[in-house]
Amino acid sequence: MANPVLVEVTRGPLVESRHRGAVAVVDAEGGAVLTLGDVDEPVFPRSAVKALQALPLIHSGAADRFGLTDAEIALAVSSHSGEPAHVEAAAAMLRKAGCDEPCLECGAHWPMDAAATRALAAAGGRPTALHNNCSGKHAGFVCLACDLGEDPAGYAKPEHRVQQAVRASLEDLTGASHTPDVRGVDGCSIPTYAVPLPSLAYGFAKFGAGVGISPACADAAGRIRRAAAAHPFMVAGTGRFDTRLMEALGERAFMKTGAEGVYCAALPEAGLGLALKCDDGAGRAAEAVLAALILRYLDLDGDQRAAVEAMARPRLENWNGIPVGEIRPTLPKAGAR
Amino acid sequence: MANPVLVEVTRGPLVESRHRGAVAVVDAEGGAVLTLGDVDEPVFPRSAVKALQALPLIHSGAADRFGLTDAEIALAVSSHSGEPAHVEAAAAMLRKAGCDEPCLECGAHWPMDAAATRALAAAGGRPTALHNNCSGKHAGFVCLACDLGEDPAGYAKPEHRVQQAVRASLEDLTGASHTPDVRGVDGCSIPTYAVPLPSLAYGFAKFGAGVGISPACADAAGRIRRAAAAHPFMVAGTGRFDTRLMEALGERAFMKTGAEGVYCAALPEAGLGLALKCDDGAGRAAEAVLAALILRYLDLDGDQRAAVEAMARPRLENWNGIPVGEIRPTLPKAGAR
Repeated sequence: MANPVLVEVTRGPLVESRHRGAVAVVDAEGGAVLTLGDVDEPVFPRSAVKALQALPLIHSGAADRFGLTDAEIALAVSSHSGEPAHVEAAAAMLRKAGCDEPCLECGAHWPMDAAATRALAAAGGRPTALHNNCSGKHAGFVCLACDLGEDPAGYAKPEHRVQQAVRASLEDLTGASHTPDVRGVDGCSIPTYAVPLPSLAYGFAKFGAGVGISPACADAAGRIRRAAAAHPFMVAGTGRFDTRLMEALGERAFMKTGAEGVYCAALPEAGLGLALKCDDGAGRAAEAVLAALILRYLDLDGDQRAAVEAMARPRLENWNGIPVGEIRPTLPKAGAR
Repeated sequence: MANPVLVEVTRGPLVESRHRGAVAVVDAEGGAVLTLGDVDEPVFPRSAVKALQALPLIHSGAADRFGLTDAEIALAVSSHSGEPAHVEAAAAMLRKAGCDEPCLECGAHWPMDAAATRALAAAGGRPTALHNNCSGKHAGFVCLACDLGEDPAGYAKPEHRVQQAVRASLEDLTGASHTPDVRGVDGCSIPTYAVPLPSLAYGFAKFGAGVGISPACADAAGRIRRAAAAHPFMVAGTGRFDTRLMEALGERAFMKTGAEGVYCAALPEAGLGLALKCDDGAGRAAEAVLAALILRYLDLDGDQRAAVEAMARPRLENWNGIPVGEIRPTLPKAGAR
């Protein structure tokens, strides 16, 4: 059975492309609120779980001992665009731990933001690991390693104490086993573990509601949510979906994109966690589905509703600015179980 | 009924993403050789039919009257990367028609090639319509307009004599009606018409075999195929799939990518035309399927087979060069009718 079509992309009078996928919406007691498609198949959450991966940095006290700011904590859960403010914040985090850019094990790439790449090239610069979209997360790992008294070298490997702490946090929140048979290597070289969508949604429901986890972990989750809401630019960057959505909604929603069409989100006031995967890995579709789910589960009005509606159904324009079509979510109303 | 899975993307031990789609392989008499998925639904071929759109430029004699070179004819059927050689060739085509860059109606964008974009930014430059990946096709349209004695202004509009000639060529080759009810606006602002995949495949079978069309059109098709095989860099650019595939296969295969996961190809020695569409619009999947189809229908050995096999099943590496997975075609053997 194929997963349902969640998004259509139109051109002129016709549907040009379609995206299928699966969705799980779960409450903080683990109850299924919405289930679309095959949610039993394990999904690599990739960067969508950076907030859960960052919990040990906070609840261990490492972030406080190194004096990390809220902007830096937001960067630690980001997939940032490599703009100057991101690069500077990642470097500042490393300095606080007494380290520098060569400590980072994420690899270098040109900034995700096209204008930042052009500016760097125009200045005669070259990208470093600080420009990697995961450098904030990695800087957090370096801080955690140093706080634990461990050599940061090798912190990206599954057997390093940092990744053991990260894995324990993921298992604690999601309730799912994170074992070598479901382990892949992520773009930034840390392990990524595939788990079913309801486990991810459950983890984010707990992350948002602060229940079903230790008080220290709940405090850490709240701090991350508030830091991201206060610094949405640090979580992504100029024009990016997560940044715009958190600018519109503030603390009402925490969401994080992951590569290959994944989204995880927490809606604290609704007591819900959301996880979705587009089968084909398309980010444009994952964004539209996430916005449609937020419209369904948050009671929005005025500017907030208008902003999220526009993000759920973006108009497509060509190089001359001529409207050519739109992206529109088509997720079924039914599917709860 | 969902279309079949044509491509899987793996990460570590698991399948991370899947791409569905439809395929038509047709001979030059219009006989179906392979049919996978729903091939009755109209598909926007986008840039995949640039070779058919360029036929009037050649068989009208305009290309010869303006002295277009084979490299320029290859550019006229390209989606190029905006590298300096592409930009210069597009400018040269316009000069031969007594025109200049402001004549182009495709819009400006930064070069598709990342290194070319960085070099342009480093030189303090700005992109023009010449950098648009469609500027070669548009320069060909300008040449055709001038040769017809028409004002080039408005050549991108459906009612202009150039687009009427392009539409007639598409109808002549594919045998499908190109009517306003299946018309969208392409990225470069010209009309794009959705037609079923077997019609596209039939058009490319005739384009490759030179049968079922006028002798002048068959000559023009042969000239375009030879020009592309002789100048594969002009058809795409550094590292691009079409360029590498035509470098490997020469005149044995003509292929052209289109936006939103489309490919069209002609295999003259097999007397076949191919057309495929990935439902979700993914180019990575369309490339793998095309390479798999070429392996199925061309009798390749040695370096040619090795090159196409590697392109059908590319290894995926992360920012540190660590292998993380692969893209692998899974198209069913069956499906002929």
